[in-house]
Amino acid sequence: MKIAIVSGKAEGPTKLNAFDNALSEAGIGDVNLIKVSSMLGPNTELVPLPKLKPGAMVNCVLSEVTSKKKGNIINACVAVAIGDRLGCVVETTGINDNEEMIKEEAINMVQYMMNKRNVEIKDLIVETITHTVENKGSVIASVVYINDDIIE
Amino acid sequence: MKIAIVSGKAEGPTKLNAFDNALSEAGIGDVNLIKVSSMLGPNTELVPLPKLKPGAMVNCVLSEVTSKKKGNIINACVAVAIGDRLGCVVETTGINDNEEMIKEEAINMVQYMMNKRNVEIKDLIVETITHTVENKGSVIASVVYINDDIIE
Amino acid sequence: MKIAIVSGKAEGPTKLNAFDNALSEAGIGDVNLIKVSSMLGPNTELVPLPKLKPGAMVNCVLSEVTSKKKGNIINACVAVAIGDRLGCVVETTGINDNEEMIKEEAINMVQYMMNKRNVEIKDLIVETITHTVENKGSVIASVVYINDDIIE
Repeated sequence: MKIAIVSGKAEGPTKLNAFDNALSEAGIGDVNLIKVSSMLGPNTELVPLPKLKPGAMVNCVLSEVTSKKKGNIINACVAVAIGDRLGCVVETTGINDNEEMIKEEAINMVQYMMNKRNVEIKDLIVETITHTVENKGSVIASVVYINDDIIE
Repeated sequence: MKIAIVSGKAEGPTKLNAFDNALSEAGIGDVNLIKVSSMLGPNTELVPLPKLKPGAMVNCVLSEVTSKKKGNIINACVAVAIGDRLGCVVETTGINDNEEMIKEEAINMVQYMMNKRNVEIKDLIVETITHTVENKGSVIASVVYINDDIIE
Repeated sequence: MKIAIVSGKAEGPTKLNAFDNALSEAGIGDVNLIKVSSMLGPNTELVPLPKLKPGAMVNCVLSEVTSKKKGNIINACVAVAIGDRLGCVVETTGINDNEEMIKEEAINMVQYMMNKRNVEIKDLIVETITHTVENKGSVIASVVYINDDIIE
């Protein structure tokens, strides 16, 4: 199994467009996202996001906050733990929270999930993104599952 | 890529059954719907909804409102913009809103998405449906992604 | 089409971890769950849950309640009606509701769905699970769609 980890932030004229712009900034704006729950296969490999086919059906874990409250500090975070037998992903979000706290929360939860499954963490990757809303703003962090069908 | 655009409205003895009846009225009641986020491939073709296999896994964009408040006017809308390189879909909904406004909102957002991607709109299709709730009512509008696996 | 029906309940240090533990207890903790809407193919066969590949993409109907209110009695229920031409699934949940009522509600709705489609019910299976929250607790009941790709 191959995954890419991406994030993006953007403003837009509506909440939907801000969200869409954040996805585009992250490189996943031109595909169909199918949200899945957060488990990885054996020895998952982290790769750079390849160029995706427009309209492809792409499985992902998505952490998202979109807000239209000026001055709101919005955070999205994904924590990825990779192991031999399997891996786990946790997503967290925050509004006016401390970014370190959101990150810590994700790390703690993903470590707990791996411990509970008796799988040693070989690699732990955390991606966070923060944005201060100007008008209508959005942040996204995502783990994208990559397979040959979706690559251009 | 082929898509069909459908809509339906219905009443039912429970909110879930009203929703289910609206899906059936739209012709997509007998399949499993997997909600995806709203992007189309190059030169997407609009086709009439084919007969789908019962229980097939069907990707779709779904706009839905279900309400049990008698007299509520409920709207569901999807706007579809088709282009050379890719296309976009936006869904909007309303409760006691002006149908034209809901439609306009969807069109504006989908036009913005296409402009942002520098893709010319070759075709713009909007589907709206409105229902006045009698007891428990539901409206749905959907863009259904069609492939050979799901056709009977 | 083959399905397995499973359920689980658990406590955890956070709501997410309680939910994850409940999925693990049900045997579906190590896969990616893709939520689908609730229709079955012709003559669907009920099978025991096979060993699933870690990280596999698994379609399911999922009924879930997670609560951090000590003493809350939480219920999850799925009702499955199997017929010749197709089948239907309904999920219900409750907090401090009577378990029998949650069950009855699911059965009534699934019977209505089958009647509406003029399909005779050949088999009706109901799975319920109840848990009294100690600290942070979760219950899940799920209909898991089984295919060769996801079996280890």
